[in-house]
Amino acid sequence: MKRIEIGHGSGGKLTRDLIENVFLKYLKSEELTPLEDAALINLNNNRAAMTTDSYVIRPLFFPGGNIGKLSVCGTANDLVVSGAIPRYMSLGFIIEEGFPLEDLEQIVESISLTAGDAGIHIVTGDTKVVERNKGDGVYINTTGIGEIVKPMSAQNISDGDTIIITGTVGDHGTSIAIAREEFTIESRVESDCAPLHTLLTPLFEIEGIKWMRDPTRGGAATVLVELSETTGLGVQLIEESVPVREDVKFIAEMLGYDPIYLANEGKALIVTSKESAPEVIETLRKHPLGANSAIIGQVNSTFSGVRLKTKIGGERMLDMLEEEMLPRIC
Amino acid sequence: MKRIEIGHGSGGKLTRDLIENVFLKYLKSEELTPLEDAALINLNNNRAAMTTDSYVIRPLFFPGGNIGKLSVCGTANDLVVSGAIPRYMSLGFIIEEGFPLEDLEQIVESISLTAGDAGIHIVTGDTKVVERNKGDGVYINTTGIGEIVKPMSAQNISDGDTIIITGTVGDHGTSIAIAREEFTIESRVESDCAPLHTLLTPLFEIEGIKWMRDPTRGGAATVLVELSETTGLGVQLIEESVPVREDVKFIAEMLGYDPIYLANEGKALIVTSKESAPEVIETLRKHPLGANSAIIGQVNSTFSGVRLKTKIGGERMLDMLEEEMLPRIC
Repeated sequence: MKRIEIGHGSGGKLTRDLIENVFLKYLKSEELTPLEDAALINLNNNRAAMTTDSYVIRPLFFPGGNIGKLSVCGTANDLVVSGAIPRYMSLGFIIEEGFPLEDLEQIVESISLTAGDAGIHIVTGDTKVVERNKGDGVYINTTGIGEIVKPMSAQNISDGDTIIITGTVGDHGTSIAIAREEFTIESRVESDCAPLHTLLTPLFEIEGIKWMRDPTRGGAATVLVELSETTGLGVQLIEESVPVREDVKFIAEMLGYDPIYLANEGKALIVTSKESAPEVIETLRKHPLGANSAIIGQVNSTFSGVRLKTKIGGERMLDMLEEEMLPRIC
Repeated sequence: MKRIEIGHGSGGKLTRDLIENVFLKYLKSEELTPLEDAALINLNNNRAAMTTDSYVIRPLFFPGGNIGKLSVCGTANDLVVSGAIPRYMSLGFIIEEGFPLEDLEQIVESISLTAGDAGIHIVTGDTKVVERNKGDGVYINTTGIGEIVKPMSAQNISDGDTIIITGTVGDHGTSIAIAREEFTIESRVESDCAPLHTLLTPLFEIEGIKWMRDPTRGGAATVLVELSETTGLGVQLIEESVPVREDVKFIAEMLGYDPIYLANEGKALIVTSKESAPEVIETLRKHPLGANSAIIGQVNSTFSGVRLKTKIGGERMLDMLEEEMLPRIC
C-alpha cells in the first residue's frame, strides 16, 4: 500500500505528484488548475484573490520571528505577489494538549502586530485542541482574501524578460536550520520573515511587471523550475548576481545546503519586461526591504529548464528537489 | 504554568474563555468581535461572508460520511446560516507521515462530490506533511467565502420570537460515538452530515427570518446558551417538541450523553418572528432534509438563560458544558 512520505509536503517534486495524481484528479477546476499561490475568484462581479496555507513549522520560535508572524506574512505575501491588496484573513489553530498558554499568547500577539504591519484584517477564527502526541505544539492555517489590482500571469512572460530578486536568498531557511541544530552555531542570521505589501504594491503601477512569486518551500530554485515548467521557457541565472549573505553562505555550506534551495519569507522573485527592469530596481531599492534587489537572470526561449552560470564559469541545470533539504520549515 | 487542555477545544465554556482571554485580547476588531460563525467583510464595496474551520475528527471515516465530506458541509453551512450563498472554498491538508494514499484519495473524492452538492468551488489548497506521532492521520482546514443575500443578526431577535430546528438532534455525535466505541453497538444511526444550502436559502425570501446557526460542537444546547448570552434574552424550550431519533435517544442514554448537547452536521436552528413561523415550517418540510422540522421553543425577555420544560413537567436550566462530552467530534 502506498503511503504519505515526508517528501510529499516538501513543495518539490513529490508534492507536485500528489497534487496532480490525487488532488487534481478529483478537484479539477478553472480556478484550481493554474496552481498559482492564490486563486482568482469573482465576487459580486469583482475580481478577488484567495489563498490558503497551513504552518507546521519546527521550532515554533526562531531568530527573527515565530509561527504567528510567519503565518501572517506567508499568506499576506501570497496575495501581494498575485497582484492583490491584502484585505482579510482567517486564522485556524490546531493546538496540542499541554501547550503552554504563555507561548500561545506570544504567538497571538505576533499575529496581531504583523497583521497591522501587513495591512490585513483578521476577521474570523477557529480553535481545535488535539491530544498529546497528536500534534506538535501549534499548527496554524491562515487563509487570505485580497482585491486584485494588477492581474499577473506566467502566460505573459516571454523571451528576454528580466528576472529580479528583492534581496538575499536563504535567510529564513538558514535561521530555522540554526534554531533546530542541536550543536550551537554562533550566528546573527535572522529569518527575513516580513510583510511585503509596502515593498511590492508600488510595482503594480509599472506596466512591464508580469509575474511575482515569494520563494518559500524549496527556495528560489524551486520557484524558477516551476516557472520554467509552466511556461515552457528557459531561465538563465547568473550565480554571481544572486545576493546571499556571507554568513548564510558559510552556514549553509557547513550544513550541506544550497542557499538557492532554502526558503525566504520576506523576498519576492519578479519577472518584468527588459525595458521596465531599471524602474523596478529603482523602485525596490527605495524601500528598506528592497535595498539588495538585483537582476539575477533572464528568460530564454532557446532552451527549457533553469541554467545556472556558476562563478567559476561553468553551467549547471537546477532541478526540483525530490525531498526538502529541511522539512517543516514553513 | 497554565497549559492548553482538551476542553479548550470543546466549543464550550473553556473555548469561550480562551477566545476572550487570549485571542480577543490581541485581535479585537469590528469583524471578529461578534464571534458569529462567519465574518461580514466588504470587498470592492460588496458584502461577503468569510468563515474558517479546522477538522480534527476521530475516526476519519464514520457511518454517513468522512472527514472530507464533513469539512465541506461544515464550512458551506456556516456561510448559509449567515445568510450567504456559498461560493468559494480553500482546502488545507495536514497529513501524518505514513497515511495510506488510498484513504486520502477516498477523502478527496468525498470533498469533490460534496462540494458539487453544496454548490461551492474549491479554488485553492495547501498540503503539509508532519512526522509520525505529530498528527492523527489527516487534519483539514476549509475556509469559505459567500455572497451575503440576507444579513442575519442576533440583535434583531426579540421577545416572543419562535425557535425552530430543521430536524432531529444529536445524529452526528451519536454516529461518531458508535464509530469510536470499542464494543460493538448494532445501529443504523448515521451522521446527518449534509450541505444545507438548498434547504435554507429559500428562507432568505421570508421577511421574519432573523437568525440561523448550525448546532455543531456542543450541540443545540450550546448554541442556544450562547444566543441567550449574546442577546441577554431568555430561551424557553419544550423538551417534548425537540425531535430526536428513537435509536439516538437509546444509544445516547446508554453511553451517558444528552442528545441536545451532541453535534449535528446537517441541521439548523432558526429564530423567526412568530408571524413567519408557519411559513418557515411549511417551506422547510417541502425539502427532504427538513421533513422533521419543528418549533421547539420561543424567546422570552422575562428571564435569561435557557430553560427546558421537561416531559415530566419540571423545568431545568441548560448550561454551557465545561468540557465536551465527546472530544474531536467535528
